This record gives sequence, C-alpha cells and structure tokens, in this order.
Amino acid sequence: MVREKAPENAALRLSLYLRYLREMGEEESISSEQLAQLLGTSGVRVRKDLSYFGQFGTPGKGYTVGKLREQISKVMGLDRIWTIALVGVGKLGTALLGYPGFRKSGFHIKVGFDVKPNKIGRKIAGVPIHHPYQMPRIIREQKIHIGIIAVPAEAAQEAADLLIISGIKAILNFSPARITVPFYVKLRNVDFASQLEVIPYYIVNR
Amino acid sequence: MVREKAPENAALRLSLYLRYLREMGEEESISSEQLAQLLGTSGVRVRKDLSYFGQFGTPGKGYTVGKLREQISKVMGLDRIWTIALVGVGKLGTALLGYPGFRKSGFHIKVGFDVKPNKIGRKIAGVPIHHPYQMPRIIREQKIHIGIIAVPAEAAQEAADLLIISGIKAILNFSPARITVPFYVKLRNVDFASQLEVIPYYIVNR
Repeated sequence: MVREKAPENAALRLSLYLRYLREMGEEESISSEQLAQLLGTSGVRVRKDLSYFGQFGTPGKGYTVGKLREQISKVMGLDRIWTIALVGVGKLGTALLGYPGFRKSGFHIKVGFDVKPNKIGRKIAGVPIHHPYQMPRIIREQKIHIGIIAVPAEAAQEAADLLIISGIKAILNFSPARITVPFYVKLRNVDFASQLEVIPYYIVNR
Repeated sequence: MVREKAPENAALRLSLYLRYLREMGEEESISSEQLAQLLGTSGVRVRKDLSYFGQFGTPGKGYTVGKLREQISKVMGLDRIWTIALVGVGKLGTALLGYPGFRKSGFHIKVGFDVKPNKIGRKIAGVPIHHPYQMPRIIREQKIHIGIIAVPAEAAQEAADLLIISGIKAILNFSPARITVPFYVKLRNVDFASQLEVIPYYIVNR
C-alpha cells in the first residue's frame, strides 16, 4: 500500500497519543474527538495523523485503546528493545543512567563512555564505562542502535563524530551545542532552555 | 486590538523561530517561506503564527532578522530576567544548575531546595540550597517567578504542591512523574523518554 509520507510532527504527535493511551484501560474505547481534546488539537488532525499509518479505528465507533496503543507502538518501532550508548557520564549523564523512564519504554543504556580516568572501568548504575577510543569496537560488538550525547558543549561535535564513525545512525543530543551530522543520521536535540522559554509567554499572557 | 488567541503550539513554534533567528545576522532579512523551510513547515503556517501577535513584516519583502527577533522575544516575555527556584538538587538538579543555556536566555536560578542535610546551607554552582520548609518565605522574599522540579518521581507532587503554596504559577517538571496542578498554574513536563521514543520511528522507516 502506498501512503503519503508522514511529516516529522505526525511522529511527534503519535508519541503524545501513546502517552495518553498508556493511562487508559486496554478495553476502553476512545474517539478521535476525545483524543483530540486531550491534546488540545482537532479530531480532523488526529484522524489525519493516524491515517498516515493505515486504517486503525472503525468509523463512527472510535478506537479500542489497547489495539490502538499496540498499533501505534508498532508503527513507531516501540515494540522491541533499543540499545543505547551514552557519551559523557558527568552529572547529567549519571542522571540519565538512573532515569527510570527509559527502560520502561524499551530503551536500554548498555554502555557509557567518558574520558575521566576515575570513571573508566567502573560501573555506574550497573552500566560499564569505557574510554571513547573503544567506542567503534564496543558499539559494533554490542550492536548498539542509538547514541546519547551528554558531554559539555565544546566536546559535543567530537562525540557525535565518534558515534557516527562507530556506525550509529540516530543521536539524541542533550548538550547545549548545535552539532552537525550527515544526512543519513537522525539527530534530535533536547534543549532545556527552549523548554523553559515557552513558560514566560503564559505568565505574560495570563 | 483584538486578536484571535494563539494556540499553545504557536507559542512553541515561536520559540523555534527564535532559535533560528538567533543564528542569523541582525541586518539580514528573511521571508516567511525561508523561515518555513528551516522548520520543515509551510509559509502559510509561519505567517499565521506571526499574525497572532500583530503585524511583523512587510508583505513581499519579508522580515528584518533583528527586528523580528526582538518582537518575538517581547511577545514571548523573553525581554526580561526570570527568576527560578529549583526543587531537588540531586544529579539532574546539579546538572541543571550548571546548564549554561539558562542564564544566556535570561533565566536565573536563584535558589535551590533539597532535603539532604549535607546540601542545606551550602552553595552549589553559586546557588544557595535551603530546606523545603523555607520555600514559602524565600520564594516570596526573592520574588521567584518559576519553579523547576528535579526530584525523584515519588516526591514530585509534594514538590509541586509546596511551590504552588509558595505562590509559584509556572512549573517546569523534569521528574518522570505526572503531577497535577490547579487550572491557574502553567505546567510543562520535560519527558526524556518521550524525546527518545520518536527516534526508532526514523530507524524503522529509513
């Protein structure tokens, strides 16, 4: 079946739908209008988003929560385990190692990399830490899928380059640096400042 | 002037526009189509977003970067300093205290709160740490605008309640817990797992 390619934002919204669906019972049913209301968007938008990925619900009857959840998870590739290498095991990196939400969602941080001698060879939160020069070998051997960057800004591009040389094709960047990657690598930036920047708008326009 | 109320997503997109505009020269000019291309959206969308906030550019001529940046910043309330109280000074909290992007964007973390006796009375990254029981007094005295929650999931609701009792009306929640707040409080959740959840979609659909 040939379908229109889904835009980036549709994938982002799918993950939001999933978040709401996870809080509901398997057997409940939900309409596109209800889903739209939870997200502050329109029913048309929801139906369009889901249509990119095939036929989900029954027209006029809505969706069964459990089934919709399962199908969205599958479309998003969340029906399996993804392995992660963490680059930078400082304060933020250590916090990410202990973040309970990752493993629950099927994301396993299998290895960490840091240049600090007192960290290399240790395990932090059960995860072994190695020197970055071992990255290509370890990432290949352990079949790592995704890289997380949590190094200081000035080391971020180098961390990305090393991950890419090691064969990684998807990176989540927590450093405040803007890094560049080749076209075949998927990069997402987590920018704490931009999360905060949206808040004053609501205080000012209250 | 009466204008249609901007939807939440428009404010989010404004912050994205701002991020791109900051990387350009003051005197450069940019069209809505160019701005749209950078963001992977449409020129119509950009013009609509900006129209919620008044008349910005010259039709057919586009926008002057410096002027557009200034006006968006003003609309978003980013033309001033915002003060922040951080609740939870563990690994993530400490990482946030040292995050260089906040101060650059006008967000000053002025005070931290933690229950650990070995942290209370100390300064971490130059920020004084107090016991949460002092929260109402300190937040009032220091005229704090925004609360950031970086405590473990099980303590997140209590942290939010204390912030709200202290008069805080805008909260950025970094804990993986879902917390509830009264209607007059603006809450934004930073969910690391959901940032990661979007990535497999691109690996699977490559």
